[in-house]
Amino acid sequence: MTRWVLTLSCPDRPGIVAAVAGALAGLAGNITESQQFGAAESGRFFMRVEAEIDEAVADRATVEAALGAVAEQFGMDWSLDVVGRPVRTVVMVSTASHCLHDLAYQQRSGRLEVDIVAVVSNHEALRPIADFYGLPFHHVPVTRDTKAEAEAALLRLVEETEAELVVLARYMQILSDDLCRALAGRVINIHHSFLPSFKGARPYAQAHQRGVKLIGATAHYATADLDEGPIIEQDVERVEHGDTVAELQAMGEDVERRVLARAVRWHAEHRVLLDGGRTVVFR
Amino acid sequence: MTRWVLTLSCPDRPGIVAAVAGALAGLAGNITESQQFGAAESGRFFMRVEAEIDEAVADRATVEAALGAVAEQFGMDWSLDVVGRPVRTVVMVSTASHCLHDLAYQQRSGRLEVDIVAVVSNHEALRPIADFYGLPFHHVPVTRDTKAEAEAALLRLVEETEAELVVLARYMQILSDDLCRALAGRVINIHHSFLPSFKGARPYAQAHQRGVKLIGATAHYATADLDEGPIIEQDVERVEHGDTVAELQAMGEDVERRVLARAVRWHAEHRVLLDGGRTVVFR
Amino acid sequence: MTRWVLTLSCPDRPGIVAAVAGALAGLAGNITESQQFGAAESGRFFMRVEAEIDEAVADRATVEAALGAVAEQFGMDWSLDVVGRPVRTVVMVSTASHCLHDLAYQQRSGRLEVDIVAVVSNHEALRPIADFYGLPFHHVPVTRDTKAEAEAALLRLVEETEAELVVLARYMQILSDDLCRALAGRVINIHHSFLPSFKGARPYAQAHQRGVKLIGATAHYATADLDEGPIIEQDVERVEHGDTVAELQAMGEDVERRVLARAVRWHAEHRVLLDGGRTVVFR
Amino acid sequence: MTRWVLTLSCPDRPGIVAAVAGALAGLAGNITESQQFGAAESGRFFMRVEAEIDEAVADRATVEAALGAVAEQFGMDWSLDVVGRPVRTVVMVSTASHCLHDLAYQQRSGRLEVDIVAVVSNHEALRPIADFYGLPFHHVPVTRDTKAEAEAALLRLVEETEAELVVLARYMQILSDDLCRALAGRVINIHHSFLPSFKGARPYAQAHQRGVKLIGATAHYATADLDEGPIIEQDVERVEHGDTVAELQAMGEDVERRVLARAVRWHAEHRVLLDGGRTVVFR
Repeated sequence: MTRWVLTLSCPDRPGIVAAVAGALAGLAGNITESQQFGAAESGRFFMRVEAEIDEAVADRATVEAALGAVAEQFGMDWSLDVVGRPVRTVVMVSTASHCLHDLAYQQRSGRLEVDIVAVVSNHEALRPIADFYGLPFHHVPVTRDTKAEAEAALLRLVEETEAELVVLARYMQILSDDLCRALAGRVINIHHSFLPSFKGARPYAQAHQRGVKLIGATAHYATADLDEGPIIEQDVERVEHGDTVAELQAMGEDVERRVLARAVRWHAEHRVLLDGGRTVVFR
Repeated sequence: MTRWVLTLSCPDRPGIVAAVAGALAGLAGNITESQQFGAAESGRFFMRVEAEIDEAVADRATVEAALGAVAEQFGMDWSLDVVGRPVRTVVMVSTASHCLHDLAYQQRSGRLEVDIVAVVSNHEALRPIADFYGLPFHHVPVTRDTKAEAEAALLRLVEETEAELVVLARYMQILSDDLCRALAGRVINIHHSFLPSFKGARPYAQAHQRGVKLIGATAHYATADLDEGPIIEQDVERVEHGDTVAELQAMGEDVERRVLARAVRWHAEHRVLLDGGRTVVFR
Repeated sequence: MTRWVLTLSCPDRPGIVAAVAGALAGLAGNITESQQFGAAESGRFFMRVEAEIDEAVADRATVEAALGAVAEQFGMDWSLDVVGRPVRTVVMVSTASHCLHDLAYQQRSGRLEVDIVAVVSNHEALRPIADFYGLPFHHVPVTRDTKAEAEAALLRLVEETEAELVVLARYMQILSDDLCRALAGRVINIHHSFLPSFKGARPYAQAHQRGVKLIGATAHYATADLDEGPIIEQDVERVEHGDTVAELQAMGEDVERRVLARAVRWHAEHRVLLDGGRTVVFR
Repeated sequence: MTRWVLTLSCPDRPGIVAAVAGALAGLAGNITESQQFGAAESGRFFMRVEAEIDEAVADRATVEAALGAVAEQFGMDWSLDVVGRPVRTVVMVSTASHCLHDLAYQQRSGRLEVDIVAVVSNHEALRPIADFYGLPFHHVPVTRDTKAEAEAALLRLVEETEAELVVLARYMQILSDDLCRALAGRVINIHHSFLPSFKGARPYAQAHQRGVKLIGATAHYATADLDEGPIIEQDVERVEHGDTVAELQAMGEDVERRVLARAVRWHAEHRVLLDGGRTVVFR
């Protein structure tokens, strides 16, 4: 038996679930988990299905043909994958190690369905961590003059490694609009703030000065419009008046790695679908 | 258009979703929200569907006939309701007012899809609250000698009011096994503890003595096996060393009312399905 | 024995605690709870002490004289109160009832050390709630032309009732700068958003459009600079993609009442001290 | 300037704070943070003070002499340390790596005021992690027959390394009563459950079977009475009906490392004081 995961979205109209479930039933597929959602505002319908199908009954081509016919009928954006297949991932970092550490640790523990095919950094600082986890490390320096070259190198690396996902794990460079567009829906960024609060630099200093009682972090898809991409996950931590900026930062980093790991996990499990500037998360 | 909510469970096998979605598609029904789950341990499949159907195309009898045929084929436990129809509810209390207050307030605010058809108490203390909210109040005293009579009176009231749900909102009497069985799956209790911790009496004093750092509450279906019924919802609140038993109790009551209101809301929206001693909650 | 609560702040320098504790020891006072904090940024020192003093040893005048001498020496802002004395409070509302309901309920349950001496509203809608709880209700309509008069009436009411605290419990009028200044540090507002996100109108619609995964509320002291007053408490609730604006609002109101009740409780217990635009909260 | 941290507890009576603050004032000490608490049940008073003292005015011996005189007068248990001095710590593990990883990572990041002087394990599995972080690794196998020897070796190691703290970071051996007594108040254990729920083996399987909606972890001081030592910190994570035992375990491990790291941090910062079977945590 192969366990497949199918995700799709299309304009909402009657018959979608029946058509999909019918196609799966035609392959003697057994649905083990499924969620659907119709977004009233956008008029789009979203669906995620996990189904077991006997390989003797239907191989990938057969499954794709059956679902492809339905997809065409309803004008679906769709994807099909095998449950648990590690998603080929490039992790980009600068000098802060907490997110890289956690992603690498969770991959090795079998907690995260990713295969980190490259760690890319504009600094050398985190090479030892990549080495410890046996991950290929690429130093791609970035200056104002070399930014275009650096991004070209990154794109080449994404192609060569056949990476499906790029994680900005505290990568302190702003991606160009072109790169964002080229990788649209495939780049997850962790923002060190509870967006839309405290956009921009030094959020923990801003948070401290404002005297907030909770600090947070936001994982979102990167878009050309900085800090405005669709939000995947957010979380907060309670702070107290005595906490210094340094302590806020330490607590913030703990929230960041947690939020980023969740967002990467859900993305890798095909649980996150895009609805314009919002996400549908089938947890 | 009528918006229907269908819930069902049955032994898991291929074709369930296709059959249900096919039946709805046959009525030109549009699925707006749906969730499915196959429980590996119990081998049962659970489904909740909201679908819009044009009344001109199919009235209730037609919808029931179409779904009934599918239900019979798969051996389903199923229910069909109109989205938003208030569930006829009896609330049972003793002297603590926080849960009754909150349920009544939320009903009146249109936040809770219930119709509180009776407030029953073994004390007179909360009659003014029932009066304020315009809810019928029934004083049914209970002594050791009159317990059987009191339960009979309760059952009669449930029948006369055609109540579908009984909420034990800090009702400090233990229901008999017979009553639990008679109302199985229709009685929600709020337990003033994070079960399975601190079963039994005076949980906040127990929690204080043990020096826990979090206190909680548990909403569950009542069963003959006290404090062991299927859990619907739990939540906790952080406490500190300086909090007295009285303060723990105040914080605990705040958690209790929140947890109970959520459990009642989800039940009333047909989001809670039973899987033996566990619940499936389609939030 | 009388249990006193002393709060103070002053420029930080050695000897403050020794002087205060020495003065209390001189009255045979027993400190039961105390917290201190020196804010590095502002250079100010904050202290809150609860101490039991035998009335036969020292009455209020004696206690005040002993502490007043220390206060003068160190240039302290200070206040002295009896633990548990209800703070005379005016609650201002418009048409949303959830916060008023909760404050009134908690006062009656003995959970909140306040004495609501007046409910003031620019609408008649919530009079029945005030009546139910036996609270004096004052209808003070506000139009553009009568705003100055309305604020004058409010100030008179505050004086006549000797109110120490004004709670803006979803009062949908902006207070004038003059009124904010006249009542500085004595007005608590509940803001229906996780500040500094979503300032301004319709925050839940903004939150929904932005697709956030958490919504929150903020209780803060009102200042002339709208939505920028010192934050006392914040909390959040997790939301999901399927939640409508109406559901966000319902969940938001639940957070609002919780956050406001905590802020009022801590203020009434003299646990909140001002450090410029930030608060020190001795929980 | 040296910044000292003083912790103390003693029978509650008037004059304690005055005496301590007076002694510090006599050394021209400046109190920067302080908390006190009188526990009504046990009749004990607890205090934690951070104070800056000019080394030219008073060296350690002078400070100790001044405070020692006060301590004797009031019958205090007390300790004096320099703020930020790393606490010499032995970490004990078996095969689960998540807690060791996190403690080592946080030490290296300067987030945890500990100096891990030894990692001890009854398995070889985690040696590579110790190596990566440059921590001495000691393999001390344990069988039923060698348990006494193994514990003797552990005690020798504690002595030789002058360790002040032993952290049981998922060490799957039960310490003997003798060892617990020998190291009383110096051993922190992370329990993979929200105590007092699910004591004993396989808590995540128990939690899954019971269908709980929250899982948690508890950090506590180890005592001879298993799982009953004073609780330092607890936290929970929300789970859903679809989460498998394996997923509960993964989420549980994330809670475990977080809760353990907090408990170790607070202990290392001298924020945790013992009040019989409860803790006072001055956060």
